[in-house]
Parts: sequence; C-alpha cells; structure tokens
Amino acid sequence: MDLNADLGEGFGHWTLGDDRALLSVVTSANVACGYHAGDADTMRSVCSLAASAGVAVGAHVGYRDLAGFGRRFIDVAPDTLTNEVLAQLGALSAFARAAGTRVSYVKPHGALYNALVRHEAQADAVVDAVRMFDPTLAVLGPPGAVWLKRASVAGLRVWHEAFADRAYTDAGTLVPRGQSGAVLRDPAEIASRCVLLATEGWVRSVSGRPVRVPADSICVHGDTANAVEIARAVRAALEGAGVVVGRVESPLRHTRYAG
Amino acid sequence: MDLNADLGEGFGHWTLGDDRALLSVVTSANVACGYHAGDADTMRSVCSLAASAGVAVGAHVGYRDLAGFGRRFIDVAPDTLTNEVLAQLGALSAFARAAGTRVSYVKPHGALYNALVRHEAQADAVVDAVRMFDPTLAVLGPPGAVWLKRASVAGLRVWHEAFADRAYTDAGTLVPRGQSGAVLRDPAEIASRCVLLATEGWVRSVSGRPVRVPADSICVHGDTANAVEIARAVRAALEGAGVVVGRVESPLRHTRYAG
Amino acid sequence: MDLNADLGEGFGHWTLGDDRALLSVVTSANVACGYHAGDADTMRSVCSLAASAGVAVGAHVGYRDLAGFGRRFIDVAPDTLTNEVLAQLGALSAFARAAGTRVSYVKPHGALYNALVRHEAQADAVVDAVRMFDPTLAVLGPPGAVWLKRASVAGLRVWHEAFADRAYTDAGTLVPRGQSGAVLRDPAEIASRCVLLATEGWVRSVSGRPVRVPADSICVHGDTANAVEIARAVRAALEGAGVVVGRVESPLRHTRYAG
Amino acid sequence: MDLNADLGEGFGHWTLGDDRALLSVVTSANVACGYHAGDADTMRSVCSLAASAGVAVGAHVGYRDLAGFGRRFIDVAPDTLTNEVLAQLGALSAFARAAGTRVSYVKPHGALYNALVRHEAQADAVVDAVRMFDPTLAVLGPPGAVWLKRASVAGLRVWHEAFADRAYTDAGTLVPRGQSGAVLRDPAEIASRCVLLATEGWVRSVSGRPVRVPADSICVHGDTANAVEIARAVRAALEGAGVVVGRVESPLRHTRYAG
Repeated sequence: MDLNADLGEGFGHWTLGDDRALLSVVTSANVACGYHAGDADTMRSVCSLAASAGVAVGAHVGYRDLAGFGRRFIDVAPDTLTNEVLAQLGALSAFARAAGTRVSYVKPHGALYNALVRHEAQADAVVDAVRMFDPTLAVLGPPGAVWLKRASVAGLRVWHEAFADRAYTDAGTLVPRGQSGAVLRDPAEIASRCVLLATEGWVRSVSGRPVRVPADSICVHGDTANAVEIARAVRAALEGAGVVVGRVESPLRHTRYAG
Repeated sequence: MDLNADLGEGFGHWTLGDDRALLSVVTSANVACGYHAGDADTMRSVCSLAASAGVAVGAHVGYRDLAGFGRRFIDVAPDTLTNEVLAQLGALSAFARAAGTRVSYVKPHGALYNALVRHEAQADAVVDAVRMFDPTLAVLGPPGAVWLKRASVAGLRVWHEAFADRAYTDAGTLVPRGQSGAVLRDPAEIASRCVLLATEGWVRSVSGRPVRVPADSICVHGDTANAVEIARAVRAALEGAGVVVGRVESPLRHTRYAG
Repeated sequence: MDLNADLGEGFGHWTLGDDRALLSVVTSANVACGYHAGDADTMRSVCSLAASAGVAVGAHVGYRDLAGFGRRFIDVAPDTLTNEVLAQLGALSAFARAAGTRVSYVKPHGALYNALVRHEAQADAVVDAVRMFDPTLAVLGPPGAVWLKRASVAGLRVWHEAFADRAYTDAGTLVPRGQSGAVLRDPAEIASRCVLLATEGWVRSVSGRPVRVPADSICVHGDTANAVEIARAVRAALEGAGVVVGRVESPLRHTRYAG
Repeated sequence: MDLNADLGEGFGHWTLGDDRALLSVVTSANVACGYHAGDADTMRSVCSLAASAGVAVGAHVGYRDLAGFGRRFIDVAPDTLTNEVLAQLGALSAFARAAGTRVSYVKPHGALYNALVRHEAQADAVVDAVRMFDPTLAVLGPPGAVWLKRASVAGLRVWHEAFADRAYTDAGTLVPRGQSGAVLRDPAEIASRCVLLATEGWVRSVSGRPVRVPADSICVHGDTANAVEIARAVRAALEGAGVVVGRVESPLRHTRYAG
C-alpha cells in the first residue's frame, strides 16, 4: 500500500505543514507546482528531500489561483487548462530531474480534483496534458472519477486513492467537508480504518455500513494540526498488520473502465 | 548568421508584437517563460509555430515580475534565482517537447539581461540553473558579460549577439536607451549595419568610429512599431550580401574566456 | 443619455484600447481596478484624464484573475468577494480623489457581470461592498439582473445599460457571443440603433421584432478594432437626433424592484 | 509610548503570526496592504479587530512582490511607486472605514523600509503618495531616514521608532540581521531595554556603550516564535515602570529636519 500526502504547499515567505517529517512517513509526495501553491524554492527543496528519502514525486496540479489556494472552481477554457497543466508538469519535472529523480504521477488539487470527478471537458484537458507530457505517468484520483476513466481509455496507468481521515457515505463517496463527522481526528481510529482499507478493501460508512473503497494509495493530510502524528500512526498500523508500505508498483485495476 | 527576436511576450488577454510574422523571418525565437511575460497558452502557441517554421526555441528567462515586465532589477537571492530559472526552463521545455522540438539556448530578459553583465552572484545563479537543467544548452548574450564568462568556464556553449537597431559606443557597448541616437529606426540603415556586422564584424559607433562587435546572432526587436519591416529588411539585406541566415551551428568563439 | 466604456484595461507593459480617444467621446469611464486588469499606473492615468475631460469615474470591479482577464467564473466565497470589491473601490477611489474627482458608480466586469445576473450570493456580496464603501454610489448593469434588484432594495441608485454593438433576443437579453450575429460591426447601423434606444427605448431583435431595452446608459466597447470610430458615430448620431449626451443624473427607474 | 507590530501578513490560505493576540498588546497595527502580503480578507479582518481593540491602523506599504514578501529591493520607477503606495493606502482605507476607524499613519515594509533610509527618488515617491492621499497621515520610520526628512519638509507629521528586539551599533543604527547578536531573544532583557528606551531615550549598544535612540513608538515583531510573549513582557515592563502605553499623540520631534 502506498501512502501519499500533499507537500510543498508553502509560497514565498509562507510555510504550510511539516514537509520533512511527512517525507519520513509517506511513500509518494504530491508536490505543488506553483499554480495554487508552491514556488521555485519549494519545488526544489521538496524534490531534493523526496529523492533522498526515496519518496515518489507526483505533480499536484491545480488551477492558477494562489489567492484561493486552488480551492475555488474556475471555469477555465479546456485548452488553457491543458497548457497550464503542461507548464506545471514541466516546471516540477525540472526540479525532480535536478534532484536525480523524476515525476512519476499526477494528482489534481483542490477544486480541480473535485471538478475532474464530473467535468468532462476539464477532465479531457488534463488527460491531454499528461499524455502530451509523458504517457508513462500514472494518474491518481478517486475511484469512478470521469478523468480517471478518460485517462484509462487514453492508455494512462490509473491509481486509486482513499482518504485516511475522511468519512465515506454508503455510496463510497466522501462525506462533504461541511457535514458533521466528515473529518476523522483520532489517530488510532484513522489507523485502524486504514488497516481495513489495505487488507480487506472496505471501511465502515458514516451510517455504519461496510462500504467497498478500493485503493492503491491512501492519502494522509499534511496541513492539519496533528498531521504527522496521524501519518505515523497509519504507517505503523499498516506495517504492524503486515501490509507492505511502498510506492505503487502494479495498481489494483479494481475498476475497469471501458473504452 | 542567426537572427533572434523576443516572442511570446503577451500575457492572458494582452498581446505584444506579431509573433507569426516574426517567425517567418528570424531563425531563433526567445520565448518568454511566464515570469516577466508569457503564459501557458503563449508558450504553447509560440513553440508550435516555431517548430513548424523550423525556428530554434530559446528560453527567454526573466525576473518574477509580470507587473514590471521584468524590466526592474530585483535583488533576488541567488539560490532563488537558480530555482526560478529552472522553473522557467522546465515549463518552456514541456511546450517545446509537445511541439516536437526542444529548448536549445537561454537568453536572459530585460533587467536580468543587464544585471548579468556584471552581477557575479546572479550570473553564477543562472549558469547553475542552465547546467543543472541541460548542459548542452547554449547561452546567448552580449560579448564580455560576466555570465557568459562563467558559462564558458562551466563548459556551456556561448553565443554572442549584437543588436540590429541599437547604437554602439566606441567601447563596443550599447548607447543607453535614454540617450539621443540610442535606437535606430530606419530599416535601410539598420539592414546595412547588419550586413557589415555579419560580413566584417564591426559597425560604426555613435561617434563615427569603427568598432568591433563580434556576433553569432543579431537581435531584431519585436515590439517596435515597424519591427517586422525592420526584421525583413535585415534578413533580405543579409541574404542579398550572400550571408547564410540560419541557426547558430558553431559559434565564433571570438572571445576566449579563461578558466 | 450616458455613454460608458471600459477603460484602463492595460496591465504593466501591456496596453489595451485607446483610452485617450475614448475619453473624448464617452461620459462615463468604467475603470479597471487591478483585479482583472489595470494597475496603479493605469488607474492614476485614467482617473486624471477622466477628471480633465469631465468624464464620470466608475469602478469596473472584477474577479481576482489577471491571467484570465476576469472572464472566467470563479466560485469565490461571498465574504471574500465583498472584501475584494471593497479593496478595488478603495484603490480606485484613491486615484479618483488624487485627480480631484470621485468614484460615482460601480459596474462589474466580465464573468462577474454575467454571474451577478443570477448568482444571488455573489450579488449580495457585491451589494454589501458597495453599501459599505459608499451608499451614494450608483450601480450599473443590465435590466433585470439579480444584483440590481438587491441593490435597489438596499437603497442604492440603479442605472441600466444597453450595449451599442450587441444583438438582442426577443426576450431583451443579449445574444450570446458565440452565436452568429451576436456582435454588430457597422458603425452606421450601430449608431442608428442607439438613436432608437435613446429616443424610443427599443431596438430590433435578432429575429426582427421590436424589443424594449430601457437604458440610462449605452455601453460602447473599447477593445474592438474600430472601437473609437463606433463610439464617435454613436455620439454624433445621438447628438444629431437631439439627444443630450451626458452623465446619468436621474435614472429612468423604468424597472421597479420590489423589496 | 506607542507599541507597533506588523499584522495582517498572511495571504490567502497562508497565515503568519497571531494577529488577535498581538492586538491585545500593541497600540498601533502596521497592516499589510496586499502588495508584499495581505489580501482583502486579511485587511478586513485586521481592521475590524483593531477597531474593536482601539488599536490605531497604519498602512504597512511595500513593494509589489508577494513571492518575495517585499524583502527584495526592486528598482521600481518613482512614479509607479507613488501610484502603488496610493493604491495600497486606498485599499486599506476602505477596510478601515468599513470598520469604523481610519488609517492614521504609514510605515514602509521590508526592503522598501530599508531603501527609503537613503534612496532619495523612492523616498520622494512615497512622500508624494502620502501627501496626495491624506496630508494628515503621520509617517513612521527610523530616526534619520531620508524619507522622514522629506516627509517633514513636506509638512507631514513624523514619528520615530525603535526596535525592541534588535541590537544597535554605537552610531545608533541597527546591527545588520546577519551579524551575531543582531536579534535579541530573551523577553526579560528586551523588556528592560524598552523601559530604558521609553524613560531615558537610550539603550546599550552591541559594544556596550550607551547610545541615544529617540522613539515615539517601539516596534515589537509579530512573526518570531515567542513574539506574543515578548510583546506582553515589553508592555508589562513599561507599565510597571510607569510609562503610559498608548497611541502617539504628540511626537517627540527630537530630530529637527530643516527645509
């Protein structure tokens, strides 16, 4: 099982999260590429640290919106979105290569992550950018997202992720952040859910029912108060349960996307 | 003799210069990389057009200063400058590769161009970025610039440029823009100076003396009123004089920079 | 009848439209406030020119999106939008006052203009900002827009505008830009439509039917190829028809918005 | 004696310092105006909190450089700097007025603060902006700065400040940050120095000599680890020593600047 976290989300003088600590726990780093967060210094630094730690570098691509941290939907034209993702991939790739590693996957951020679940034109736009940049890149997202379907059809490798600290509905989707119980905070509870996810492929939904959540990777958050503590608890619990924690090698392919 | 021009200098809704027309005249395109001008759409578009036209793509790297068009000196830390140049090279490279070509050289823009003539720390910073990104890239600048010396010592290929429409002092440096006679405007006069530059390696200075100006490439400006007319006149005059206009293959190496 | 145009829409080194020429024709200037276009220099310059020309200064407020020229919908939080409009009003007001005039009205730009026709939360957000900043400001927009209703209920003065060069549907709304015939280009035709608008309050729709378009102000565009020519033709035709062209003094109040 | 601190220095999703805690200690808040830090939400929030707390609002104006937090010198043209300061004053003023208070003074930030000590053209540019915006504003800076001289000559009220946690040279200037001993960290030591400053007008220099440091206001920093602790210690010590801590009413005028 892979563990991923969002890193390099500072900007200029501002910092966010404890990148060094998280890089000692996760196996995949979603690195902000300067559009919603991150700048040249953060990309350089996180890529170097990730390379040293043997952590995979992923491009955490977002809308061009530093003021909104990429958390507001922007009705950007698909062609422009393709080009903006290309620019982010190119910039991050320069730092990954300078650090002796490479970008190995792409994960959208924030409002773009949410939009790509259903927005077909933006989904195609991002898939086009990934293919154009490097068709050997994997794409990481939630099971069922339109953009993963398009990516699969386009021949890209698709990885699915689950969220360590988020509650799921009976339908297997995330409970929206605004609702009560949407975010779990107890490291022990989160860790035991992750063990279930990794070993049996399901979690108990917010209403108490078992719900299948297939995942190649588990996302642990980096910007909550006890983010590092949670990440460490998850990793320790997984390893305690005999789960090998490591980069995604061969995805589950649990979901088949028809062409 | 190579002809280069600054292209892709629009931003978002704003345009600057006639990229298409210039791409039918020049042999090297200095493409803005998003820091002083340019965005993902302009990089994509210019790289595609340049590839189609067989024009070499150069990274026109600048300070992070869209509001100032990269024309104000910024006392940026050298480490940050290295990283900012890496980010620009990476982004542009993604578009060049998507267009089936590659970035083949680097030319600093505006205030960075001027700073690198003497500012040793920033010069080293830019050279470091180029080496780290791709040591086969050439660097393009004015003869004698500190950054070209450092680049040469670092093993990078160095190309020198002269300016088609600028007057030179007796010392072979540009007459500052503010001074009278600094900028030439007559296409015929500019073209005949370029022929002299290309065939004999000198021009007449602002005081009337012949001054040696060795050049692998001649820069024609893209944003003046009659930019395209001047560029065409220069190319026609060069070709009329039997000068082969084409990308730099083997630089003159007129200036030897000792290690 | 008032004539308004979008001005000050350059940014840094980039220019857009011929502000000086338009300021000799229009009676109200919608000045970009730095969020979708405009910077401190353009605000200063346009306010000074407008004050000299006796042209009213309006705040052309937009989404925070220089890269998109404010033309993409952004799902910004209403509280943030209120604050962003306040910031724009405050900045422009500083320049208006420095020029010896004042901001007298507010007109949203681009995607915000379109969103406020129906988006209630963003409409309320903008109305809140205007009231908070200066409840004597007028608001300018298309008849029937939700935000004008809210503004009216909130006690703000409401001005309605028609577009000189846009075709209208039978329902009195604009034909979307993408559709054929949406934008008129012939100065004479545009001018004669404006006379009808000003003297009788209607135009012929795209299907040929007369449709009522009540307007206190007619918007002439500033960024089309023959923008100045059209604006002059409109003004000349209006004056030739005996219409007094001048700032809005007492709006038509043709539409009654119930509290 | 006035106590001032830099506040509102977050941006978007990023925060910096504990504005609420500091507003319970200081009497003047230097509020970032969006150019080097701060956005519409932070300006609104800090102005509201400051108004509630009875803390004076000052405009903390900086270079247009979010990526560099205003800490890099930018060789911006004086006219542009004047306009950029005007824009910042206007924006902040809108929030101050919405909160029922007003901007009462101006303090430059970071690299602009340092530049204005000697850079005459930029000093004049900032003074011009302040006069144009509101000649009743005070200006706050270090004794002897060129810009304070120009401000005084221009008829503006001048306030001088000392730094609570910075060492001084024998000449009464700050020991540069890079040098050892430049920044004091012990709250008790800092507090006792401030008492000396407030009651007798001098501190012991880094070499141990008493050096005169006249101050209307003492700056406590907001972004260090124990910023709030230090600020509280300073205020408690001042009050314990019988110093009235409050907004500047009548400046010391210890330094006379000749016209």
